[in-house]
Amino acid sequence: MEFTAEIDIMPLDALLDPQGKAVSGSMKNLGLSEITNVRIGKHITLKVKAKDKSEAEAKVDEACKKLLANQIMEKYSFSLKELVA
Amino acid sequence: MEFTAEIDIMPLDALLDPQGKAVSGSMKNLGLSEITNVRIGKHITLKVKAKDKSEAEAKVDEACKKLLANQIMEKYSFSLKELVA
Repeated sequence: MEFTAEIDIMPLDALLDPQGKAVSGSMKNLGLSEITNVRIGKHITLKVKAKDKSEAEAKVDEACKKLLANQIMEKYSFSLKELVA
Repeated sequence: MEFTAEIDIMPLDALLDPQGKAVSGSMKNLGLSEITNVRIGKHITLKVKAKDKSEAEAKVDEACKKLLANQIMEKYSFSLKELVA
């Protein structure tokens, strides 16, 4: 079986997000002051082959822990969709 | 009314994603060769005040077009959820 994974990796809520703050400021300059609390992270898509969904989940979780997310500063979440051949 | 927006900004499908390619290669080194086609983009969350959902959508769309996404190389999509005070 093959699955596509959609992964979101965001700065931990307690952490300051300087990039997000800067973009929030720019919103005001664009006349979009109703937009606040901008926080910026990574969106990653990938394909994973596995014998079933739970194995696919375990592999994506391992990839997040080992490579994609820095767990000291970031949190991650993901969803899986089966790819119909 | 206030809404939270979840925005995904990804490289256009036709474009090479060197960062994604590099990460795909690293997966092999981690023994996760079942993971392929890694593509990396931005996940942005923000809050927006508006009188209704369609106005909120228009503001987020404007923010994506003017600031958050580089439409020559990126595509964007977003979802809105009403914040219950």
